[in-house]
Amino acid sequence: MPETKDINFSNGLSCPIPKSDYDKVLLAHGGGGTLSHQLIQKLFFSQFDNDVLNVHHDSAMFDINGSRIAFTTDSYVVQPIFFPGGNIGDLAINGTVNDLSVSGANPLYISAGFIIEEGFEIEELWKIVLSMKEAANKAGVKIVTGDTKVVDHGKGDKIFINTSGIGLIEPGINISPKNCREGDAIILSGRIAEHGIAIMSAREGLEFETTVKSDSASLNNLISGVLSKTKNVHVMRDPTRGGIASALNEIAESSGKGIHIFEEKISLTEEVKGACEILGLDPLYIANEGKVLIFVPNTEAEGVLNIMKKHPLGKESSIIGTVTEDDPGLVIMKTLIGSSRIVDMISGEQLPRIC
Amino acid sequence: MPETKDINFSNGLSCPIPKSDYDKVLLAHGGGGTLSHQLIQKLFFSQFDNDVLNVHHDSAMFDINGSRIAFTTDSYVVQPIFFPGGNIGDLAINGTVNDLSVSGANPLYISAGFIIEEGFEIEELWKIVLSMKEAANKAGVKIVTGDTKVVDHGKGDKIFINTSGIGLIEPGINISPKNCREGDAIILSGRIAEHGIAIMSAREGLEFETTVKSDSASLNNLISGVLSKTKNVHVMRDPTRGGIASALNEIAESSGKGIHIFEEKISLTEEVKGACEILGLDPLYIANEGKVLIFVPNTEAEGVLNIMKKHPLGKESSIIGTVTEDDPGLVIMKTLIGSSRIVDMISGEQLPRIC
Repeated sequence: MPETKDINFSNGLSCPIPKSDYDKVLLAHGGGGTLSHQLIQKLFFSQFDNDVLNVHHDSAMFDINGSRIAFTTDSYVVQPIFFPGGNIGDLAINGTVNDLSVSGANPLYISAGFIIEEGFEIEELWKIVLSMKEAANKAGVKIVTGDTKVVDHGKGDKIFINTSGIGLIEPGINISPKNCREGDAIILSGRIAEHGIAIMSAREGLEFETTVKSDSASLNNLISGVLSKTKNVHVMRDPTRGGIASALNEIAESSGKGIHIFEEKISLTEEVKGACEILGLDPLYIANEGKVLIFVPNTEAEGVLNIMKKHPLGKESSIIGTVTEDDPGLVIMKTLIGSSRIVDMISGEQLPRIC
Repeated sequence: MPETKDINFSNGLSCPIPKSDYDKVLLAHGGGGTLSHQLIQKLFFSQFDNDVLNVHHDSAMFDINGSRIAFTTDSYVVQPIFFPGGNIGDLAINGTVNDLSVSGANPLYISAGFIIEEGFEIEELWKIVLSMKEAANKAGVKIVTGDTKVVDHGKGDKIFINTSGIGLIEPGINISPKNCREGDAIILSGRIAEHGIAIMSAREGLEFETTVKSDSASLNNLISGVLSKTKNVHVMRDPTRGGIASALNEIAESSGKGIHIFEEKISLTEEVKGACEILGLDPLYIANEGKVLIFVPNTEAEGVLNIMKKHPLGKESSIIGTVTEDDPGLVIMKTLIGSSRIVDMISGEQLPRIC
């Protein structure tokens, strides 16, 4: 039993809550690492407990009159709001489309909730809205409902956007981190760490120049190609906040399986590699916004890989690893020099406000 | 044709946009009045144009495999986050439950997206989460998916919460502001202006004391009682931001009908009335968070009223007006002293950050 303390409500009631190591919310609580997970587990999952609540899924899934529905939400607070390769608007569409897609759903409808800081330029808002429109059109989803709130100058940061999304899961598809099986091949759809590096390069005060662009893109078309080839996909995940390291750790943890990856199979450009070295960052932990990890039985791997390589967003797909009964709950990387290292979950975040 | 100007994108493309009267977003753009409507119409509706986009509805509605689904989103930026009668957490649940309910849907699933300012007290977060849980339990909805972002200290305001929601609309129900018909009775479920006054009384720097509490409550149970009595409900609306005046104006505008209301039928407590006088506010424009306006054919009105009066949230329901072919698009109030006045849409907002 965790130690508890009482909190008091203004109506005179009090309620015991587990003692926390922290009194205040830290930036790292939003970073997608261990601290984020602890907050979500202890607070949200413990209280909002129900049979549908999505534990370690990218979307909640439930039946309505026999149709299998996926439902997801994400708030975007990326800073800066315009960056090489995109802006907060298309990122908000792509991110939610991808969360639905990696649940095996066909994304259909999107909501858009804007929290705008007083004094924000109307022209910037136009640019963002036009980008959202374009991204939605490209992904074939409809933005069907929205909300606009304005907060006082100094009480926000230009613009925050929440997008929620609804998708339909076809019968026979059952994708979940828990479905990870020994012998599964792990396919990654391309080069890593480009979104995070593009954001960093656009940040004020950082003195480094690069031509790296965010990989922000909607993956639903790539993924539906895979699912039309085989419904036998065990796990899918878009490695966003926390990079492929965090995504793989979550899958290892919730399945209790071991994950072995091979450094030589994970591709990144020389430029991204150089930027990571300058900034002292590990590319495995850096956010991607247009990549997917796909776990399929080894027998299906070549077929899926071939399909993916034919798609513009999957040209550089490769099998980066495999699932094993050894090392349960751990992610182990075979390095280029032949050694093995544990790829941990990071506790905080390397890069705040990356999405 | 509106005059246009070109905006330039970083990729070299440019795009014409309509010239705006404002260069920057004002607080009033989020107030639910004329400025909000202009922004939403000109910018969001013009760009996100599609057959489902909810124009003047509280929810989007669409079919999935023959089931009629309602989908809505709202971001909550209320200040202060704790106020007499509730806090931002239960408000976020109740508000989204109500948006689904007034579309005629049975609310089922809710998402919760948190944007938390660095340094926010973990205990406060617990209080909010426990209130959300209680509100969700009371309304019989499940919180099934969520997201947590943390922004730097000074770049937010303690906590903002987005809730999106999904509900199911039973066959035979067709509720829309456009369905407003001549002769419809307009029923209001109780006293007005309590949420807005409760928020104002809790704001720092305002030197007035009152015991007025927010009416924040989930209306789905009250409304499902009405719909089990008759499916012949033409319009429903929860008069939140902008109060009953704005809600009725939106209905008059989108139906092209006239709305006549009777001042003597609109009830508010002496305390709310006094607070409005001190603050120089018109209670017709002040937000409610637990009230509903219901338009039914006159022949159904007494039956619906009786059902509503039996419900704790509808005890003080009354018929406050009627729909007419006269005065198309206008809301006219017969005052206590026997005169008539036009109840306009306000351009800005009386009270910023009320929800």
